[in-house]
This record gives sequence, C-alpha cells and structure tokens, in this order.
Amino acid sequence: AEIVVLPGDGIGPEVTAAAVAVLRAVGQRYRHHFNLHEHAIGGAAIDACGDPLPEKTLAACHYADAVLLGAVGGPKWSDPGAKVRPEQGLLALRKAMGLYANLRPVQPHPATLGAAPIKPHLLSGVDLVVVRELTGGIYFGDKTRDGGSASDVCRYSVGEVERVVRRACELARERRRHVTSVDKANVLETSRLWREVATRVARDEFPDVTLEHQLVDSMAMHLLSRPRSFDVIVTENMFGDILTDEASMLAGSMGLLPSASLGDERVGLYEPIHGSAPDIAGRGIANPIGAILSVAMLLRHSLGLAMEAGCVEQAVSATLDDGIFSAELAHGHAAGTREITAAVLEHIA
Amino acid sequence: AEIVVLPGDGIGPEVTAAAVAVLRAVGQRYRHHFNLHEHAIGGAAIDACGDPLPEKTLAACHYADAVLLGAVGGPKWSDPGAKVRPEQGLLALRKAMGLYANLRPVQPHPATLGAAPIKPHLLSGVDLVVVRELTGGIYFGDKTRDGGSASDVCRYSVGEVERVVRRACELARERRRHVTSVDKANVLETSRLWREVATRVARDEFPDVTLEHQLVDSMAMHLLSRPRSFDVIVTENMFGDILTDEASMLAGSMGLLPSASLGDERVGLYEPIHGSAPDIAGRGIANPIGAILSVAMLLRHSLGLAMEAGCVEQAVSATLDDGIFSAELAHGHAAGTREITAAVLEHIA
Ligand SMILES: CC(C)[C@H](C(=O)O)[C@@H](O)C(=O)O
Ligand SMILES: CC(C)[C@H](C(=O)O)[C@@H](O)C(=O)O
Repeated sequence: AEIVVLPGDGIGPEVTAAAVAVLRAVGQRYRHHFNLHEHAIGGAAIDACGDPLPEKTLAACHYADAVLLGAVGGPKWSDPGAKVRPEQGLLALRKAMGLYANLRPVQPHPATLGAAPIKPHLLSGVDLVVVRELTGGIYFGDKTRDGGSASDVCRYSVGEVERVVRRACELARERRRHVTSVDKANVLETSRLWREVATRVARDEFPDVTLEHQLVDSMAMHLLSRPRSFDVIVTENMFGDILTDEASMLAGSMGLLPSASLGDERVGLYEPIHGSAPDIAGRGIANPIGAILSVAMLLRHSLGLAMEAGCVEQAVSATLDDGIFSAELAHGHAAGTREITAAVLEHIA
Repeated sequence: AEIVVLPGDGIGPEVTAAAVAVLRAVGQRYRHHFNLHEHAIGGAAIDACGDPLPEKTLAACHYADAVLLGAVGGPKWSDPGAKVRPEQGLLALRKAMGLYANLRPVQPHPATLGAAPIKPHLLSGVDLVVVRELTGGIYFGDKTRDGGSASDVCRYSVGEVERVVRRACELARERRRHVTSVDKANVLETSRLWREVATRVARDEFPDVTLEHQLVDSMAMHLLSRPRSFDVIVTENMFGDILTDEASMLAGSMGLLPSASLGDERVGLYEPIHGSAPDIAGRGIANPIGAILSVAMLLRHSLGLAMEAGCVEQAVSATLDDGIFSAELAHGHAAGTREITAAVLEHIA
C-alpha cells in the first residue's frame, strides 16, 4: 500500500514518527508492505516553498491509498497580516480529496478516567463517534474584508448534508443504531435545511436507525451531563470542530484521540485531533497515542485490515493499562513520546 | 421604575412569576416602587396576534427602565415550514433595543458543586463572566434558501467588535483584570477582524488589563480543564451561545444562571440562560433561581440598586445552603418552583 506521510508543524513530526514506527511494526508482524512517502504541508511547506499545500504533496495524496498527517500551524505563521496560513494547506487538502466525513471516536479508557475533568461515574461506558462534516459550511464559504467590516458565508447544499448524514447512519447501523443530529435550527437557515434533510434521509433510507435532533447549545451541555446516551453524533463543520474538542475532555486528554476523514473512495486522511502544540514542540513529551490510534483507523478504513487495526488498539490499551502516560495524564512519572511509543511497539511485536 | 415583564413560553411564565414575587419583596423591604407591565412575546404572542414581537410589546420595552424575560420557543411553533418563530421575537427585541453585550456570570455555589458533571476540585473558586456579542454575527446576517441550498452570512464591523470588547475590558477592571477573547482566527475572516480589533482596543484603551486570545475549539476544552483561570471571556454571538451553555455545567445546572443584556443606555434585558423547557412546563418543578438572579442583575445594572441586588443574591445563596434544590440538582427531596421561591422570599423579607 502507498501511504503518504505529512508530518506538518510543531509536535506533528514527533507524533508522526511514532505513528510511522507503529505502522512499520504492523507491517513486519503481519507481512504487509507499506510504501511510505513523506511530504511537506502547513507551515513547514510555507517555509520550504511558500505554499502550505505544494503541488507535489497534493499529487502524492491523490495517488495514495491513505494519508497520515501530524498537525499544522503555529505562531510563526499566524501574523495577522500573513497572506498564507498553514491551516489553508490542511483545509485545501481535505477539500481536494473530497473528505467530507470526519470521524472522531471518543471511548474513554478506564486507566485515564482519573485524568478527565468529568466525574468518572458519568464516563464509564461512554462510546460515541462524532461525524463532522468537513468540506462545507463556514470554513469554505466566501470571505470578504473591506476596511470597516468582514464576513464569512456559511452554505450547505442538500447533497452535502445527505451524504454526511448517510455516512453517520451507516456507521450507526454497525453500532447502537442511534444518531443525534446537531444544528441551530431555531436561528440558522443552513440548520433548517440540515434538519429537514437529516430527517428525510433517516426516515426514507434508515428506518432501523433512531434519529434525534439537538440544538448545538443544548448539546454542549448534554455531552457533559449524559455522555453515555450518545452513539453517533452528526453535525456541520464548525459545530463539529467545537463539540469534538469539548468531547475530548471525556477521554481525559485530546492527545489520546484519533480521527479519520473519509469521502466516497477508500482513501482517507488520518490525523490526531490535537493541534501542533508549539509550546511543547521539540521537547520529546508529546503524547503520540492520538497519532498511533489514527494508524489503527487507517488500517481499518483505507486498507481493510481490521485485525491489524485491532492489534494496534490493543497495544495502546495495554500501554495505558500499564500506567504509561504522557505528562498531561500522569500523576507520578510522565513518560515521553519515545517511551510511550516503545511500550506500544513491544505489545505489537 | 417601569419594568416590563415578558413571561414568554414553556416554563417562562412559571419562573417569571417567581422573579416578580422576588422583585415585589425587594420593593417592599427597601421601599421602592416598581411598576410592572406584562406583555406577550414569542410563541404566546404568535398565538395571541401572529407576531412574536408585537408592536405594543416593543413600544413598552422602549419606554421601560428594564425588561425581565422568561424564555421563548417550543415544539408547537417549530414546524420546519413555520413562517414565524418565537425566537425571532427575542432576537428582534435584542436588536431593536441595541443590547449588544450579553453578560453571563458563572460562579458555582458550594452547595451545588456535587451536582456538576465536573470534578469538584476543579470548580472551587471558579468565578467567570462570559460577555457574548448579542446583536451581530451569523444570527443577524442575510439568510437565503433556494430549493437545493441554504446560506447564512456572518458579518462583523469594527464598531461592533470595539464596543463589546470595551464592555468586557471595563468589566475586567472591576474584577481580576484578565480578558480572554475567543475566536476562530485560523479559519474565519470575521475572527481575524475580531482579533485585530480586540488587540488594539485592549492595548490602546486598557493597558492595565491583560488580554489573551483563544481559539473556540481549544476554549471548549480549557473551560473544562482549567475553569478557574478565566475571569472575563468575550466572544461573538454564536460562539458565546455554545460556550455559555457548556460553562453552565460548571455551576451544576443551567437553571441556576442569570443573564443581563446591555447596550449603551442603562436599560437592559434580563433573562435566565435556560430555555422554555417544554417537557417540564406547567408541572411546577422548574428551577426559578436563574430568573431570580436575573432580577439581581436588573437591580444592579439598570436600577443602580447594588445593595438590593446583593440582598437577592444572598437570599438565593442561603436557600442553596439550606439544601433546597430543584429536581435536576436534588439528591433527596426535590423542591418545586413555589417552595424554592418561598424560601428565597423568606430570606428577603
Ligand atoms: C487547524 C484547524 C484548521 C482545524 C479545523 O478547525 O478544522 C483543527 O482545529 C481541526 O479540528 O482539525
Ligand atoms: C432562543 C435562542 C434564539 C437563544 C439564542 O441562541 O441566542 C438562546 O439559546 C439564548 O442563548 O438566549
């Protein structure tokens, strides 16, 4: 399989190196041959050639079976007056590859419940996936700026809503058959369209799946007060961005969480949900688990290697069971990126 | 003082009745004369005259010293095809009165920490206020719908950002002199404008106040992982809507939280942050504390009666200390709306 690796910025290269080591170990154990192709994206690509998504990178991704990404962005490229931004590279890549469904599973591990700001009794048994629409909405609408004011347009078409809701319902069929669609239909026209389409798709195509609607503000509460009651959550791009970062607190640290961005083809983009964390970059203390679990999602969704994916997940689980935690989770000894990766690798070999 | 009372829908009338009883008790104890004028808004107004903000209601508000509101909305008026919605009445009122700054304080009471989904040790000492921009952004931008797609425009002008940031900085001066401005400047043009203006206003006009910037997704995490580190949080309309509902979980129940919507004049609109909760309407179990604390904010901000406001706040605090809780907070006996109100009144008289 051809796999493109995009380390990106900040702690991106560190966690990506860990993920690549895990991918190689899986290849060795199960005798798969993974061809890895590393390319530049984000701030690193701006530094190298002035473009956050160089043509060579995009071409490689179009050719790949899967793409593994670290993180992009950082203060170095965030000047208010900056003409190009690292984030544009990531957004353009998601769009160019047609990856409209961003899956973000949250399944707190028993060993890390203690680190979550949420009370443990609310967390046991939590097992949810947010399906965030990823190539539409206010992220991609027209943006204007004239001296005195600025604007961003949020737009959704029926087709854009249909396909992501469908994906969420299909996922729910493999799970507990419950979908929560999140919008702000009491205020936004795009949300009213969203709600209508979601209702129709679920009714006509997934009569065996239960659909409920929640307003985004209520959802920000319910995610905390009754997280166990959610199975699949589907929502638009911006709401998904906010709610998944919030939901990451259910797991104790966003450093633990992976994501898969999928479209109609088998190819996907896999990245931890955390950012480039410039404050801790280069110190060898970044948590590689989110990136490593992204490898598991890559194996499962783009390569069809479910057993291998399960092996990675079990190796991570065993590592956490052993109390090997990075700084944001640790009470006593904090393990560095290498130590955690080594522990995971040991469980795989 | 002339005070307009807008009970609205669902539990709105129940909690408003409690708030009015408290207002009358304060008037009696401190010998103030409050003239109360009740008017229709929201779904109740649609039912009465087809308009969620009748002219008579708006005229009364324009004339008033302060407006006390319950809540609007409910399934009865939420048909996808509905031409008028209860929420439009509230949004139009906020806009017409120029109430651009919505203050939502969150100060968990020791007695209700146990009911919060957040671990108690994170909550002690939490004392923050969200200043939510209330008359701009995607709530009020153009909305379009043509069969196949829908759009909402988010727009902010320099002036709109300046005035609400100024209000937040002024508030911070009376507190711990720390302002966190929340945006999504790595993606949205309106957020980049927001960040530039916030930076300039703080630097030029409030050198004694510390301003930090947070991305909205990170903020959704930090609110939970380190709530004590925030003092004043200022953000745009939609982000504020989501983050305040999330922040309400720090207090144990959104039923406890008040809000004040202010503009350049002294007049303000005061409402609990909870919604109309149609599922429990008419059962006498709604928590009136959010509405009652809104009366305290009204006394302080629109009538300049700080001592009286403090009296209401202490009465609420004493009631909670006595373990008199509504259902969503109670472990044992759940007190109804009347019982809670009676307890508060007893502490005032
Ligand atoms: C880096 C940024 C553009 C990105 C987003 O907002 O989509 C990130 O926050 C994410 O969630 O993947
Ligand atoms: C009822 C609704 C329009 C309103 C809003 O979104 O502003 C409510 O959620 C609030 O927070 O006051």
